Amino acid sequence: MSTPAGHDDSLFGRRETVEQVEEGRDLAPKFDDRGLIPCVTTDVHTGEVLMVAVMNPEALAKSIETGEAHYWSRSRQVLWHKGATSGLVQRIVEMRIDDDQDCVWLRVEVAGGASCHVGYRSCFYRRVPVGAERRAGAGLEFVEREKAFDPKAVYGDAPNPTQL
Amino acid sequence: MSTPAGHDDSLFGRRETVEQVEEGRDLAPKFDDRGLIPCVTTDVHTGEVLMVAVMNPEALAKSIETGEAHYWSRSRQVLWHKGATSGLVQRIVEMRIDDDQDCVWLRVEVAGGASCHVGYRSCFYRRVPVGAERRAGAGLEFVEREKAFDPKAVYGDAPNPTQL
Repeated sequence: MSTPAGHDDSLFGRRETVEQVEEGRDLAPKFDDRGLIPCVTTDVHTGEVLMVAVMNPEALAKSIETGEAHYWSRSRQVLWHKGATSGLVQRIVEMRIDDDQDCVWLRVEVAGGASCHVGYRSCFYRRVPVGAERRAGAGLEFVEREKAFDPKAVYGDAPNPTQL
Repeated sequence: MSTPAGHDDSLFGRRETVEQVEEGRDLAPKFDDRGLIPCVTTDVHTGEVLMVAVMNPEALAKSIETGEAHYWSRSRQVLWHKGATSGLVQRIVEMRIDDDQDCVWLRVEVAGGASCHVGYRSCFYRRVPVGAERRAGAGLEFVEREKAFDPKAVYGDAPNPTQL
């Protein structure tokens, strides 16, 4: 059934028992008290985690229907078709859901190869030293040496989504 | 400086500018309004996403100090040293932080090879059909055929963390 939000509500089943949610074949996602579900997105070729974002029901439904990643933008409070501005569309090769169905994993192919608004391939371009290395006082280390694109050329004067 | 929470507060820097947070070498994580930061954990050998959980400052500090994954258990409301009950400890091979430092990625080696309370290797053991396959009416598909361990043998009568 189509809803005022514009997505097919029959995509999502009801959560009735723990066994159904954990061991069943119904997609019965749990959105949190803000109506959102977190989503991890990895590069299908390298396995690298590209980004972690959230989806509302409409974004999850659009992702399923179109095979392209849609998120909910918390900074802009809009449905966010990734790549609509930058051209860096994420084609979904595989979508997975976790045991209690409160988290989504997308394995994607990225047009242009980059996903991070700062210009790097992955948002996770810095390593945090742990254990002995951290005790020796090491700071964050950049694991990507060069940006994949120039964010000013791609995003122009759009506001930076990073908040302090 | 050691705090009443028992972790070294000097591990975390202050968030002063967007440039420092995005392009600097200081670890200056952003915890949300509940004091939590999400964490994606992948298998360092297969690249598979094993789980997505949250950390409070103490869990993040303990993970950095010990090199073993610690989370905050929302269902039990305690610091959660992963594997303390099951033996399935996660040794951190690499920790990364994202652009705006509000998400952590752990690449781990898992003792026993499994991370999911249902008994599977990964919590993401089911695939969600998208696009044409979904339109053809396909349900969730199990990508792991067999459980890696018997959850009843490992967890006994501990309450199931899945909530409807």
